[in-house]
Amino acid sequence: MTSSPADDTPAEETFRPEARAPRGFADKRARDLRAERAILEAVSAVYERYGFEALDTGAFEYADALGKFLPDSDRPNEGVFALQDDDDQWMALRYDLTAPLARFAAQNWETLPKPFRRYAFGPVWRNEKPGPGRFRQFIQCDADTVGSARPEADAEIIAMAVEGLEAAGLPRGAAVLKINNRKLLNGLLTAAGADSAGQKLAVLRAVDKLDRLGVEGVRLLLGEGRLDESGDFTKGAGLKGKAVDQVLDFVAAGAGGRAATLDNIAKVIGGSAEGDEGLLELSRIDAALTSLGIADDQAFIDPSIVRGLEYYTGAVFEAELLLSTTDEKGNKVSFGSIGGGGRYDDLVARFTGTATPATGFSFGVTRLAAALRAAGREPGGAARGPVVVITFDQAHMGEYFSVVGQLRAAGIAAEVYLGTSGMKPQMKYADRRGAPAVVMLGGDEIAAGTVTIKDLDAGRMAAQGLADNAAWKAERPGQQTVARDQLVGVVRKIIEG
Amino acid sequence: MTSSPADDTPAEETFRPEARAPRGFADKRARDLRAERAILEAVSAVYERYGFEALDTGAFEYADALGKFLPDSDRPNEGVFALQDDDDQWMALRYDLTAPLARFAAQNWETLPKPFRRYAFGPVWRNEKPGPGRFRQFIQCDADTVGSARPEADAEIIAMAVEGLEAAGLPRGAAVLKINNRKLLNGLLTAAGADSAGQKLAVLRAVDKLDRLGVEGVRLLLGEGRLDESGDFTKGAGLKGKAVDQVLDFVAAGAGGRAATLDNIAKVIGGSAEGDEGLLELSRIDAALTSLGIADDQAFIDPSIVRGLEYYTGAVFEAELLLSTTDEKGNKVSFGSIGGGGRYDDLVARFTGTATPATGFSFGVTRLAAALRAAGREPGGAARGPVVVITFDQAHMGEYFSVVGQLRAAGIAAEVYLGTSGMKPQMKYADRRGAPAVVMLGGDEIAAGTVTIKDLDAGRMAAQGLADNAAWKAERPGQQTVARDQLVGVVRKIIEG
Repeated sequence: MTSSPADDTPAEETFRPEARAPRGFADKRARDLRAERAILEAVSAVYERYGFEALDTGAFEYADALGKFLPDSDRPNEGVFALQDDDDQWMALRYDLTAPLARFAAQNWETLPKPFRRYAFGPVWRNEKPGPGRFRQFIQCDADTVGSARPEADAEIIAMAVEGLEAAGLPRGAAVLKINNRKLLNGLLTAAGADSAGQKLAVLRAVDKLDRLGVEGVRLLLGEGRLDESGDFTKGAGLKGKAVDQVLDFVAAGAGGRAATLDNIAKVIGGSAEGDEGLLELSRIDAALTSLGIADDQAFIDPSIVRGLEYYTGAVFEAELLLSTTDEKGNKVSFGSIGGGGRYDDLVARFTGTATPATGFSFGVTRLAAALRAAGREPGGAARGPVVVITFDQAHMGEYFSVVGQLRAAGIAAEVYLGTSGMKPQMKYADRRGAPAVVMLGGDEIAAGTVTIKDLDAGRMAAQGLADNAAWKAERPGQQTVARDQLVGVVRKIIEG
Repeated sequence: MTSSPADDTPAEETFRPEARAPRGFADKRARDLRAERAILEAVSAVYERYGFEALDTGAFEYADALGKFLPDSDRPNEGVFALQDDDDQWMALRYDLTAPLARFAAQNWETLPKPFRRYAFGPVWRNEKPGPGRFRQFIQCDADTVGSARPEADAEIIAMAVEGLEAAGLPRGAAVLKINNRKLLNGLLTAAGADSAGQKLAVLRAVDKLDRLGVEGVRLLLGEGRLDESGDFTKGAGLKGKAVDQVLDFVAAGAGGRAATLDNIAKVIGGSAEGDEGLLELSRIDAALTSLGIADDQAFIDPSIVRGLEYYTGAVFEAELLLSTTDEKGNKVSFGSIGGGGRYDDLVARFTGTATPATGFSFGVTRLAAALRAAGREPGGAARGPVVVITFDQAHMGEYFSVVGQLRAAGIAAEVYLGTSGMKPQMKYADRRGAPAVVMLGGDEIAAGTVTIKDLDAGRMAAQGLADNAAWKAERPGQQTVARDQLVGVVRKIIEG
């Protein structure tokens, strides 16, 4: 509570605004925040162990620094939340954590330790149409190395992503990093004579649809084009027969292990300097990953990965969740990609004019938390409410506070009920808070130096049929009156189950 | 790194934006973030132990929900960052954490456990003129109880603030909570016949200047008015002689302990229902604080505290830092207030029409971190850079990575230098990163299964004259070559000093 800037605003007696959050912005309660924090703490620890330092920039960047002005436009484009500052400069809320990094690196290049290794997490904002599960603010977590062209820098990012996701609660086998290199397909197309930027882009777009359309659909899109079920015709990339086969052979070159895939790729892309360079980079990434202890089941090479169209200049990575859940109808739902990244050389150059090699990985924290939860792995563990001390009589407040003080001193969350309702609503309150127990002190208990403890956890377990035998009931009395100095011990036993 | 929404934007070949952060927005490096996180973790743990649950709302609220529309204005006022959504509704970035809480509580009142106890931390934005040390984005940390009129709810907030600030790194005696109650002065003025809202406000404004103007200055402002040194006349509150004395007696009623102050206040404010109510509330706050173990040196009653003008309706609190530092000229600089709060009943009512008693406390995390640092108490302790493995030869990358893997597995931050510079710039890099040590593996070491470790910490300490004796030097060889399996032990010894 601070004094509000609205202090001097005349009161509006009659106007009552509707209490609602803006469209696409979610209120996050304790459980969501607990999950996010657990993920961020676990991932931060890994990233710091890799020698990456934390950085946070402000929410705003100048719109020109974000590159969000369209030609012939007098305001930033639709994808960002923008406003004009009092000096007429347009500012926009960051829509990712990479653009602010590029600005920061360009601004501080002289004094930064180079290569500059930083990680960041925080909200980003997208001014897009909100919908179910589609928010306009969400948490991203990024790690980037700016100023190293070495493929080993890519390998470190990949290894760190693997370890970070495992630390966040994804057991080995629940996620995989897929790696590709943009130079391979580029080199192949150049060698095949399909070297216009537009044609390369069309090929990337076609390959990116492999999951959805299958090999034959992609074959059509690589060639003349494809007529879909609705009768719409999509113009193809216009490759000729042999080149189409080469692209499809390349896309299908993924084998189980990284070494085998590299061998396969070597057979189908040979013949251009750029392709050879891409292959050499992937070999060095593979070698470094192996040295870093990252096995084939944690990170493999998949030549069908595209990721972004004009952004990446070399290696690209994608983190795919192998977890799945079932929807209301019992159908399996895969979570798919939760993050990705790659090598980009042009972002810092936007400011400085000097190409600056950079590589990074980003994942959506909110999305990962949702996936972990859906898979039954609550990040940070189940949240526990406080022990609630029931309020019977204002005259005994001092006793109630002394009891919560005892519990808090033992590290147990506890509170005195501070409303004015009777016993039944107080029990309901304790239940809503997820309290493991309530503590009652009536006049008799106070006179006798005792407390009565009601075990709400036991009630919940019994209600779920989890604890319906005589031995367990003897072990967990629903209610017991004990001496004050036994309070902490009894409550701790309830909490620890 | 994710694909950017700007992917399809045509390249702007020649335009090079200047790399600069928007005015009033700071980039935070590792040290600042470490301090903020340490404070937030420590304070969160205390607040959760008190039974407060975390809540985070989105960055935006509708401007009407923030109450930021001035009458006859077609856009939100200057103090906020506002923009119009695509459905023409005005949204503004939150300028504190209380207004979003009021909106959330009003929106969810039916289903919330009541009283609703929540804490929150996160950035808030103020569209004000930036200046040195004045930012337009900063981190606040709030705790509020909505739905309890009990003075014990205020006491808990105060106790929690005391414990939270101590947990954040302020030793006992370095901060104090000052408590007052708005009803006391109100009651006194009503009894004295000075009962217009305008006159009461003028009295509050006068009292608020006590620190700056002293008793005689305030006396003038309570009466006819005051002529300052520059010749400007400030009109006074227009109280008559006896009422002026009563107000000054009240303001001076603070004694060492809470009980003594309550006795003093009782002597000077007697005679109005509102004053008696305020006194009773303060007595109950005092009693609850005592039950909670909060002593007079941690929280006392100070009748001169004002805090905000029209916002608070009962108890008010202010957290004052007793730490000080010295400026460049050797003058003592006090940090003053770092937070405050109080009881407010009208915020939720803005939406619902029903007065809802609420009380809370807020402090500035960035400001507290700066104060702790200035007082030589770095929050979270000193940051350490990673151990840097020097890169001599691409052919040996696998060995370097295996060494960093060994260190990381032992929980030690480590990295392979991934630039392309020679030995000397690599040592400079390690120094800039604050590396405790560098590890070198030349061909000889690799053949022999050894590593050479250079102790940079020892060098730093020697440079500061902290370690200039022979025994110490024997204990800390500047450089040593050891077997690989001794690496972790030697590095750990260096880090632990």
